[in-house]
Amino acid sequence: SKHRIAVIAGDGIGTEVMPEGIRVLEAAATKFGIDLQFDHFDFSSCDYFERHGKMLPDNWKEQIGGHDAIYFGAVGWPDKVPDHVSLWGSLLMFRREFDQYVNIRPARLMPGVIAPVVRRDGSPRAPGEIDMVIVRENTEGEYSSIGGRMYSGTEREIVVQETVMSRIGVDRVLRHAFEVARSRPKKHLTSATKSNGIAITMPYWDERVAEMAKEYPDVKVDKFHIDILTAHFVQRPDFFDVVVGSNLFGDILSDLGPACTGTIGIAPSANLNPTRQHPSLFEPVHGSAPDIAGKGIANPIGQIWCGAMMLDFLGHRGAHDAIMGAIEAVLQPGNGAPRTADLGGTAGTSDVGRAIAGALAA
Amino acid sequence: SKHRIAVIAGDGIGTEVMPEGIRVLEAAATKFGIDLQFDHFDFSSCDYFERHGKMLPDNWKEQIGGHDAIYFGAVGWPDKVPDHVSLWGSLLMFRREFDQYVNIRPARLMPGVIAPVVRRDGSPRAPGEIDMVIVRENTEGEYSSIGGRMYSGTEREIVVQETVMSRIGVDRVLRHAFEVARSRPKKHLTSATKSNGIAITMPYWDERVAEMAKEYPDVKVDKFHIDILTAHFVQRPDFFDVVVGSNLFGDILSDLGPACTGTIGIAPSANLNPTRQHPSLFEPVHGSAPDIAGKGIANPIGQIWCGAMMLDFLGHRGAHDAIMGAIEAVLQPGNGAPRTADLGGTAGTSDVGRAIAGALAA
Ligand SMILES: CC(C)[C@H](C(=O)O)[C@@H](O)C(=O)O
Ligand SMILES: CC(C)[C@H](C(=O)O)[C@@H](O)C(=O)O
Repeated sequence: SKHRIAVIAGDGIGTEVMPEGIRVLEAAATKFGIDLQFDHFDFSSCDYFERHGKMLPDNWKEQIGGHDAIYFGAVGWPDKVPDHVSLWGSLLMFRREFDQYVNIRPARLMPGVIAPVVRRDGSPRAPGEIDMVIVRENTEGEYSSIGGRMYSGTEREIVVQETVMSRIGVDRVLRHAFEVARSRPKKHLTSATKSNGIAITMPYWDERVAEMAKEYPDVKVDKFHIDILTAHFVQRPDFFDVVVGSNLFGDILSDLGPACTGTIGIAPSANLNPTRQHPSLFEPVHGSAPDIAGKGIANPIGQIWCGAMMLDFLGHRGAHDAIMGAIEAVLQPGNGAPRTADLGGTAGTSDVGRAIAGALAA
Repeated sequence: SKHRIAVIAGDGIGTEVMPEGIRVLEAAATKFGIDLQFDHFDFSSCDYFERHGKMLPDNWKEQIGGHDAIYFGAVGWPDKVPDHVSLWGSLLMFRREFDQYVNIRPARLMPGVIAPVVRRDGSPRAPGEIDMVIVRENTEGEYSSIGGRMYSGTEREIVVQETVMSRIGVDRVLRHAFEVARSRPKKHLTSATKSNGIAITMPYWDERVAEMAKEYPDVKVDKFHIDILTAHFVQRPDFFDVVVGSNLFGDILSDLGPACTGTIGIAPSANLNPTRQHPSLFEPVHGSAPDIAGKGIANPIGQIWCGAMMLDFLGHRGAHDAIMGAIEAVLQPGNGAPRTADLGGTAGTSDVGRAIAGALAA
């Protein structure tokens, strides 16, 4: 059965890493006999905005809403369009309109990558020693559109914004997180909270975690306030397995986790609608990176890793594992494989893409 | 002129580190001819709650409101009193009622401490290489008392909580942060934001930063979204000088910063009312630490460092510097000085307190 993939390369290095992502997906499709159809779209980019005065065409839902997945590069180019305009006009809108209520972001210490966080005795951490999955609520919480400003321009000026948590919104992401935890060997779920300070919404979050934990007696559950949790990420990242957080806390932890593993430039993310009523969206964490865009030196591994997650979501676990194996084989130190500048090498984006596609085919 | 200090040891290791803090303050008072009067209070502790059913006596403001400063140990003992009850009934109430609108938390890599974050090449960072001050808004923002729950107990249940930012509240903490930045050699101020996602309150924060920056042309200002900012703390903590954030972002960064310097167990914090209309409060970051309480092994350096900040605030910069010098002298590796277990030693709390008082007197 054919999978129809909407491809949105977007801005900056998004357009450079996307061809490598597709190269590897095509290699996987050949190897595993998967039928992939790629449809390319030029909207959801700041270039599109400059031409059309908006991020998306009016019929964007018709154009991409029927696809099986969206393979996404990066969006945002602050010199052309302010971030909140480009993001709320595309990526954040997709999350809401396609009800992609779970955001999954793995943070794993990969071979050949030096982690900036060391063990208590100062020795380096080994590949695989850090291996966690951040599960982020992706549609409500602190990212709310309710609020506003009063007494504007005066000394009495005041600005308010609601955080909104719903039973449905909280429970469905928690359930997903419990299921992910249950599927992993350590079966350990950590909840990010701040119920001692944010004393209305966050105690509710805790309550729902405690309630759902009763249904998962096989999952070991703990919770930490977000402040000390960030400290633990640095001091004992090996302690964590699956970590679930609200929209904001998940956002923070899913940058911090990959940073602790030295992989923020190659980390993937999956914006999932587990009901499959709408397409899910797969995007690398790195963004458009204006500082290195146009040079052909961006690391394509994040985009490729996203492709692996997309195939997994589409039911091809074997192809996912094979792509991950190929990434790890290329990253392995001392193998002479090309590496981009962020990993201390001098190779170009497509050198790395070709090496991974080659390792996969081999 | 005499300084009247209200002493609240509070819970857990608060009661163990406080005597060492006072020991060192008394040594400083003697050396620099400062007149300190210590008045001890047993409220604002969970033991007090167990006896009286509340955290504070009704006339607490009369009892401590006239003091020049509050020297605070730690509050909280979840087995006796839920955290949100003990904290909103004491510490968080002091911050509000005494309008302690600035929270200052230094994060500095000290001698003799191994930082868990290393350089890009894997080599360890040197003492002083990380040296930042987190300036946190301390009275409004995300820590709001406005909000509630509806459709309780049903599938439609919804919980909302307002984040509230006022011009007065934002401007006064920003001004303080700009002044702190101006007073330091690097004159570099970083603002924590999330205006791309939290798109009502956070753009306002950015706007006020940009407005005030015009008054401080000598201060180099930049801003980062909180997600990538936490990543930068791990990857290049040496880049930062003064970092200002909202109540929640400041809370997170002021645990993460000390964690990156390996000093979360010894970091101090100052809850300041710079107008001096009400007392300011000085408390170590570590909290009551139920897991090690009662053993006499807690590290008293956080409490002692707080004492130094308190003397600084009371106008005794020289005494502050002398205490910091004594702390650093004792921490210096290979000097045979006592160290507590968290720093790899076997000494008790009072051994370390006596060593620092001795170094100060010498
Ligand atoms: C205990 C808690 C409510 C408090 C806070 O969040 O302010 C603490 O984390 C702190 O930073 O002083
Ligand atoms: C760009 C920004 C709005 C977005 C977010 O905060 O969700 C990004 O940080 C992410 O994590 O995908």
